Amino acid sequence: MRDIRISFNDLLELSAKVLEKNGFPRSKSAIAARVLVEADARGIHSHGVVRLKRYIFEKNQGFIDPNAEPAILYETPVSLVIDGNKGLGQHVSIFAMQKCIKKAQTSHICFASVRNSNHFGIAGYYSELAQIHDMIGISMTNTYPLVLPTNGLQPMLGTNPIAVCIPSLAAPFNLDMATSVVPRGKIEVYQRSAKSLPKGWALDEYGKPAVNASKVIQNFNNHSNGGLLPLGGDGEMYGGHKGFGLAMLVDLLSAGLSLGQWSRETYTEKAGGVCHFFGAIRIDAFGDPYEIKAHVHQIIDKVCKSTKIDGREKIYFHGEKEMATRALSYRDGIPLPSELLEELRGLC
Amino acid sequence: MRDIRISFNDLLELSAKVLEKNGFPRSKSAIAARVLVEADARGIHSHGVVRLKRYIFEKNQGFIDPNAEPAILYETPVSLVIDGNKGLGQHVSIFAMQKCIKKAQTSHICFASVRNSNHFGIAGYYSELAQIHDMIGISMTNTYPLVLPTNGLQPMLGTNPIAVCIPSLAAPFNLDMATSVVPRGKIEVYQRSAKSLPKGWALDEYGKPAVNASKVIQNFNNHSNGGLLPLGGDGEMYGGHKGFGLAMLVDLLSAGLSLGQWSRETYTEKAGGVCHFFGAIRIDAFGDPYEIKAHVHQIIDKVCKSTKIDGREKIYFHGEKEMATRALSYRDGIPLPSELLEELRGLC
Repeated sequence: MRDIRISFNDLLELSAKVLEKNGFPRSKSAIAARVLVEADARGIHSHGVVRLKRYIFEKNQGFIDPNAEPAILYETPVSLVIDGNKGLGQHVSIFAMQKCIKKAQTSHICFASVRNSNHFGIAGYYSELAQIHDMIGISMTNTYPLVLPTNGLQPMLGTNPIAVCIPSLAAPFNLDMATSVVPRGKIEVYQRSAKSLPKGWALDEYGKPAVNASKVIQNFNNHSNGGLLPLGGDGEMYGGHKGFGLAMLVDLLSAGLSLGQWSRETYTEKAGGVCHFFGAIRIDAFGDPYEIKAHVHQIIDKVCKSTKIDGREKIYFHGEKEMATRALSYRDGIPLPSELLEELRGLC
Repeated sequence: MRDIRISFNDLLELSAKVLEKNGFPRSKSAIAARVLVEADARGIHSHGVVRLKRYIFEKNQGFIDPNAEPAILYETPVSLVIDGNKGLGQHVSIFAMQKCIKKAQTSHICFASVRNSNHFGIAGYYSELAQIHDMIGISMTNTYPLVLPTNGLQPMLGTNPIAVCIPSLAAPFNLDMATSVVPRGKIEVYQRSAKSLPKGWALDEYGKPAVNASKVIQNFNNHSNGGLLPLGGDGEMYGGHKGFGLAMLVDLLSAGLSLGQWSRETYTEKAGGVCHFFGAIRIDAFGDPYEIKAHVHQIIDKVCKSTKIDGREKIYFHGEKEMATRALSYRDGIPLPSELLEELRGLC
């Protein structure tokens, strides 16, 4: 496959058109396109416009209701429970995150637990929305179960990412991490290049280290036993129970608090049922925002300027690589396989 | 070393007496003793009464001011910044967590960022305090730098634990995890038994996998390069950048928001300077607390009852092992090395 570069705005227009031509309303199409193109621009292609075909499929299957509007089920000055009503994940998530930011403007802090939504793209997009308001942003989601609990043989949890963005005088700290060792997309990359998987990423259907990427994907698709390992790997020797705990935490905040479907129960009926959790916290709830951002910057800066191991590239802070890639994508265009662009054009 | 069993209450009394006889006021001694004995009762002996000698040493060195009272520097209805004034970590932390719970009773949510404190024991003790109020409890702390950033050779971050406790109809979910692969205590256990360290726990002063536990401890003590690896291990292959990110997150919330000393700058002057972060969130901010706790319980229960890998013990939820050990400790006494008990008696 040959990569060609397409400008950010052209890809945005193309992606929105793909959704519009396939039955999604204009405004929602634009929102979903934006979040997907942001992923590609940052180099996270597994969560980019490659997903458009899947969204159309899920709409046609009745999982996504393209016209649905999210509804607030419950609220206090500092909290929200939102029903996504099977809407587009990006639309539901922007609604929820914007409500959090708005309420935090008055109440300093707001959290939202969201049920009955769909795939929302990259978690880090939403956490980052808060920082221009001098707020810490938090974003999590459960998802289709692919991850094994520590000592377990059945995939019970999603790759359940956690994103937290903290404002700084310079670029913000934006941690966006799947709570598994690797996401599904990494296994697919190894499948395409027919490489053996490193031991410690996934287990096979007998609970042994999986080395065959195709077999792992086949197990995912057949709902068989085996699956991805939580961050920290197999058992407790390297802290696998910690990754398992973080994945559980995401499910309990997303699905637990909203009374929604937890990972294992997503995609079981005619709805994705995906649940999210968002938060916004004004940093001036803790003092002068300038001083706090200066201190945050100083900590990040000192860590990144500490001595690196000989032969290693650099000490990156979280979000740094993605922002560097995004800047290049803006200047030079976003590299995407020509076949994917052809396919998207065909969908219009 | 031979372990003998001492009753929970006897150990509590002995530990409080050790502090009292060494210049700590009665009420603060009782609080610190309680948190330390809770650690031993749960089997987390590295954070138990073995620390008493160190607290006395730190008091004598001027790091801990035994009579200090924490002060509120800044507050909103949902937030607090607290100066520990070099006080006993447990006293400062109970003060902060209780304030969070009290303010959350009115405002639904409260977070506290705390500076200028000292070692606080097990993070999970404080997160757990919120659950009897039907609140989610959060507790984090930075600490002495032992952990390497991804690609870094200098220990810049503490083992920076994160604890989150979520109420359930049955026992709560209480995740309490160092953000390094293993805590310092695990290296000490290998040192005592002269065993080689598993590769992936620590790096030596050249950035190579460390196998000699004594050398790793020596590097800690000499402030040399090398140190513990973040959760996920060396580099990015197994997600080490995620553990590094979680450790950073703890420092930014604890030291960043309170303008306190981050891990690398703790214990640099005549103060520990340790910073904590606490939170309390009423679950009825998201709906009926009974329904939420029932749903949380159901999720935990289904995960734990899923098929386990042949030959593995059990799928544990977070906090389950500690509570089982605690129940045995209550019934049969807490097992401790006889030499340690002798030493404590000698300190009275």
